[in-house]
Amino acid sequence: MLDKSQPCSIDSTLSVIGDRWTILILRDLFRGVRRFEQLRQDLGIAKNILSDRLTKLDAAGIIIQRPYQRNPIRNDYYLTEKGKDLSPSLIALMHWGDRWYAGGNPPTILTHSKCGTALTQITLCPRCDVQVSPNEIASRSSEESVLKATR
Amino acid sequence: MLDKSQPCSIDSTLSVIGDRWTILILRDLFRGVRRFEQLRQDLGIAKNILSDRLTKLDAAGIIIQRPYQRNPIRNDYYLTEKGKDLSPSLIALMHWGDRWYAGGNPPTILTHSKCGTALTQITLCPRCDVQVSPNEIASRSSEESVLKATR
Repeated sequence: MLDKSQPCSIDSTLSVIGDRWTILILRDLFRGVRRFEQLRQDLGIAKNILSDRLTKLDAAGIIIQRPYQRNPIRNDYYLTEKGKDLSPSLIALMHWGDRWYAGGNPPTILTHSKCGTALTQITLCPRCDVQVSPNEIASRSSEESVLKATR
Repeated sequence: MLDKSQPCSIDSTLSVIGDRWTILILRDLFRGVRRFEQLRQDLGIAKNILSDRLTKLDAAGIIIQRPYQRNPIRNDYYLTEKGKDLSPSLIALMHWGDRWYAGGNPPTILTHSKCGTALTQITLCPRCDVQVSPNEIASRSSEESVLKATR
């Protein structure tokens, strides 16, 4: 059985972005939407909720704000390195929706900007240099890993 | 700007699994937890919420129930093919937590069951055969794609 006291990185991630609005805001930022009013209109989200989620994303270091106007101050929102690092998570969530809910016709296709080819995402064993399926995945706790390394 | 009427596969996915409890239940199922009482204890989740989320996951075809006891009926919960296909999403969320919240010491390491090597997840351009960074990702709508294909 699981050790309940053990921290879990999925839980860590969800405690920061485990909210549907937050993920949809991030999706829009990846698409290049930068301004509060554009986000509000595109998502159909209430101002107070949008403001709250942006404040939390800023506090978590996932976005930064840069003023494009003073008096009154208006900000553009940008993803930080930490925010951009959520790209694989959003791609994975999108591809699953593509495979199971798009009826064979994904609404948006992510491509390599240099050549326009549709991207794939794979789980790889760097030692065997093969793609690994869910049935071939095991796990070990970090503690075991330390033990093995010191034996 | 974005076309609000356009469906989005991230949104499709979140409408099914966009709930923190749901993702944590899925995490436990991937780890091999099978029974209601084990899930309840491990997650510290209220019975009615766990029951609700399992019912929704079953209705969405993400899990199936197989009785291990009759009178009263008790079920084991298993991931379907559609459920197992969420593996890349959970791996991506986990790896982000590992990188940004584990202080260089990930609590759990996913490995290739055949050789024990830690797995990586990469976004790949199959044409250029290179790993693609978030800054090199573009997108096109499915409609454009159809237009290009017929030109």
